[in-house]
Amino acid sequence: MRTTLLDVNPRLKAIGESPCNALRARALHITQELAQGVPKTFSRVVDLCSFDPQREGVPPNTFLQQVLAVCLYPELLSDEKCALDVRQRARRLIQSCEGSSVGCYTPSSGLVYIQHRIAEFITRRDAGVPTDAHSIFICSGFWRTLTMMTKLLSSSEGEPQNGVLVPLPYPHTLAMVLGLAGIRSVPYRLREDAGWAMDLEELQRAIRTARGCCRPMAIFISNPGNPTGHVQNRKSIEEVIKFAAAEKLFLLVNEVDQHSVHGSGIQWVSYKKVLFDMGPKYWDRVQMASFHSLSNGLMGECGLRAGYMELVNVDKEVMIFAETLVNMDISSPVPGQLALDILLNPPQPSEPSYDLYTQEILTNLATLTENALRAQDFLNSLPGMSCQPAVGGFYVYPRVDLPAEVLERAKAAGVEADVLYCQELLEEQGVCVGAGSENGNTGGEYHLRLCVGVSSVVLEEALERLSAFHLRFLDSYSCGPHLETP
Amino acid sequence: MRTTLLDVNPRLKAIGESPCNALRARALHITQELAQGVPKTFSRVVDLCSFDPQREGVPPNTFLQQVLAVCLYPELLSDEKCALDVRQRARRLIQSCEGSSVGCYTPSSGLVYIQHRIAEFITRRDAGVPTDAHSIFICSGFWRTLTMMTKLLSSSEGEPQNGVLVPLPYPHTLAMVLGLAGIRSVPYRLREDAGWAMDLEELQRAIRTARGCCRPMAIFISNPGNPTGHVQNRKSIEEVIKFAAAEKLFLLVNEVDQHSVHGSGIQWVSYKKVLFDMGPKYWDRVQMASFHSLSNGLMGECGLRAGYMELVNVDKEVMIFAETLVNMDISSPVPGQLALDILLNPPQPSEPSYDLYTQEILTNLATLTENALRAQDFLNSLPGMSCQPAVGGFYVYPRVDLPAEVLERAKAAGVEADVLYCQELLEEQGVCVGAGSENGNTGGEYHLRLCVGVSSVVLEEALERLSAFHLRFLDSYSCGPHLETP
Repeated sequence: MRTTLLDVNPRLKAIGESPCNALRARALHITQELAQGVPKTFSRVVDLCSFDPQREGVPPNTFLQQVLAVCLYPELLSDEKCALDVRQRARRLIQSCEGSSVGCYTPSSGLVYIQHRIAEFITRRDAGVPTDAHSIFICSGFWRTLTMMTKLLSSSEGEPQNGVLVPLPYPHTLAMVLGLAGIRSVPYRLREDAGWAMDLEELQRAIRTARGCCRPMAIFISNPGNPTGHVQNRKSIEEVIKFAAAEKLFLLVNEVDQHSVHGSGIQWVSYKKVLFDMGPKYWDRVQMASFHSLSNGLMGECGLRAGYMELVNVDKEVMIFAETLVNMDISSPVPGQLALDILLNPPQPSEPSYDLYTQEILTNLATLTENALRAQDFLNSLPGMSCQPAVGGFYVYPRVDLPAEVLERAKAAGVEADVLYCQELLEEQGVCVGAGSENGNTGGEYHLRLCVGVSSVVLEEALERLSAFHLRFLDSYSCGPHLETP
Repeated sequence: MRTTLLDVNPRLKAIGESPCNALRARALHITQELAQGVPKTFSRVVDLCSFDPQREGVPPNTFLQQVLAVCLYPELLSDEKCALDVRQRARRLIQSCEGSSVGCYTPSSGLVYIQHRIAEFITRRDAGVPTDAHSIFICSGFWRTLTMMTKLLSSSEGEPQNGVLVPLPYPHTLAMVLGLAGIRSVPYRLREDAGWAMDLEELQRAIRTARGCCRPMAIFISNPGNPTGHVQNRKSIEEVIKFAAAEKLFLLVNEVDQHSVHGSGIQWVSYKKVLFDMGPKYWDRVQMASFHSLSNGLMGECGLRAGYMELVNVDKEVMIFAETLVNMDISSPVPGQLALDILLNPPQPSEPSYDLYTQEILTNLATLTENALRAQDFLNSLPGMSCQPAVGGFYVYPRVDLPAEVLERAKAAGVEADVLYCQELLEEQGVCVGAGSENGNTGGEYHLRLCVGVSSVVLEEALERLSAFHLRFLDSYSCGPHLETP
């Protein structure tokens, strides 16, 4: 008889494997088949399921590469082939490390120097709103930081379950992260017909629902929206803050896409700035966590794993627990911490790397802007597809109207209809896109999640293949798509 | 009225701040005071509380630095100043990354190539015992990987609490990690008088105790011992495996210090190798996880954050949950993953970097060997101090006999007596060592945890200051130390 882990934690059992992971695993398998010479109608898989720009043709940032190379091998400090500001920046960063080496642990909340550099960035961004470097917790990425917060928000044993209001649609791993912490997700719907705007009446409906099934503790917001690509204006943010104040909700604000606002005339403003501008009545009352991430800057450095959370107005007792939790993670990887400084504090106009850095960032922003418009126009031109404008972030999130036969076939196969669509798209055309059901069930409506943070060439290829599949797919159903007026 | 997080998870509340963190925070503060010119009898704080060798004078590994610099800035691939094998290794590692860039996410369990390279290392190390690369989960360090395992081992709600047998003394953050997962730690004492050997009768006593208070699921072992520095021989490992098989316990084996075995004539052998050699009766029955870490190799690369866990014989169902958990972490930092290859698969004798690499590693091992002997002899020469030989790992763990007055004073101050000792040592001499009570309460006996994975110069300075403090400290109690026969 074998020893067994008799019962795996039921919260884990409830999670199971996500369709996105299954799809990506299949994509990997197809890539391996292609490498082995298995014939397909395509020569490589294009993955628009999640944001990973360097994988899909977006070049890395040269200044960041150079500075990190010097930090890792300080002999290069004396190599005059490296620009002066590269070496100066690297020298400062190396000196900021414990033991002046990237090879040392850092304090659990991150290197003190980097905390201060992040604080400088926030204060500059928010036109002087004060920032306490001690309130900045550097972690290895957004989800890791959010997981830490869920531990603070999870229920005590024997108490009613705690809940968090979450947007519908939500970022595709949010429900899993909350679920594993035993937190109830209570959705509030974004208004697709209004460009995925937040709606106060809907928030009020959601909180009433929440009070009937759990103890609501917090509201989660993505601004820019993930996967919806909307950006809240100041008035909308004020409404949400007033709502959170009235309902005593902690604000969990995903602001990781703050640098990638690309809609014409759209201004992004931070929740912290708006909260501060609303005066002491709110500034003294509302607690919030704002999340940012290295992966989501316009450099798309996903492999280094770094992000930070700023806690604003948080009770001192809770801050101590946050520190305890961070301490359990030991320290986050040093190269990523150093890269945060480069993301948030770019070279200055007087410095030799300024031109190239600026050009690379602006090129990435221009590509993103064009891609979002191109994808939106293209998708809207397809039958049975409608796509709201995306003005921020890296996704477009079109609705796809699927024929009744598809729904039946999906039901018989035991999968969501959008998952079936994505599976067949991958098999037939080698394009991997996200199924909207991963971003939350929207009751009979189906969406796709397409990352547009890729090179123009990659996007164009993906759209062409998607179109070929989509038309063939609809055509195979005699009745055509079940079209609805957008 | 402020919104508040009404009740923080009670498991967190129970953890609070550890004395080690408080001590390190105070050490940081003293360092800042020194920088501000506050006069002290010492010019810098020496920290032997935990292993962080590059902070304490151990130089980084040149080959690792060079290869990572090239991986981060691939322009260097064409720089002939880098040795050929540096560039070849870097090229292979870059090609192993998704999108051929360090800036991309990796599969959640780690880069496939690195998993295979780790598997090659394990098979070579264990003289041909088969290794499945799919059973290797790369994570950002040992504690992160162990935390993942604790999620698999934690209790279902409404079920009896699950438990893990843990050595006493244990690695100083183990109890916190298990506690946060709601797992009961049930200690088995190591035999200090036998060089911290594991003792079968004591294991049997511990499992009886465990069955009275929880459902024991696993046994945690450190080999080499942390903080005890012992290394199990094959016979001792066989005993533990038979015990685990009989009691249906999962083996959680901390083998992170496998490269730092320095006792004369001591051979380290892996649990997996012994389990395999014991034949199908055990190989088919006993499940285990073996942990390894980049931080604990002789390069001491603590800042890159990487480690791995090999699951051996684990139920397929449990493997799926392990994958789900790993998926939640997205991917671990790429530079650390790449560094694992360099740690485990050094340059070959035919390659240009072989000599320097080998010399650096052997120098580190020689320093560690000398330091362990030097510390042990020195500590044994102090009154009221006795230190067992450490033959592996990076710590020595002397017992310190404290006068009754110290115990009373500590009681009055609400701290453990060894914590009081460490606090005063830090204030008076600027030496930070670990209090044994963090490694588990041993009932009226006190120990100190001293890291010897530092440069000889740092160690010598620390020992001299410790000695000055110790003699002054004992001298201040008229009755002298309460000496016991070791």
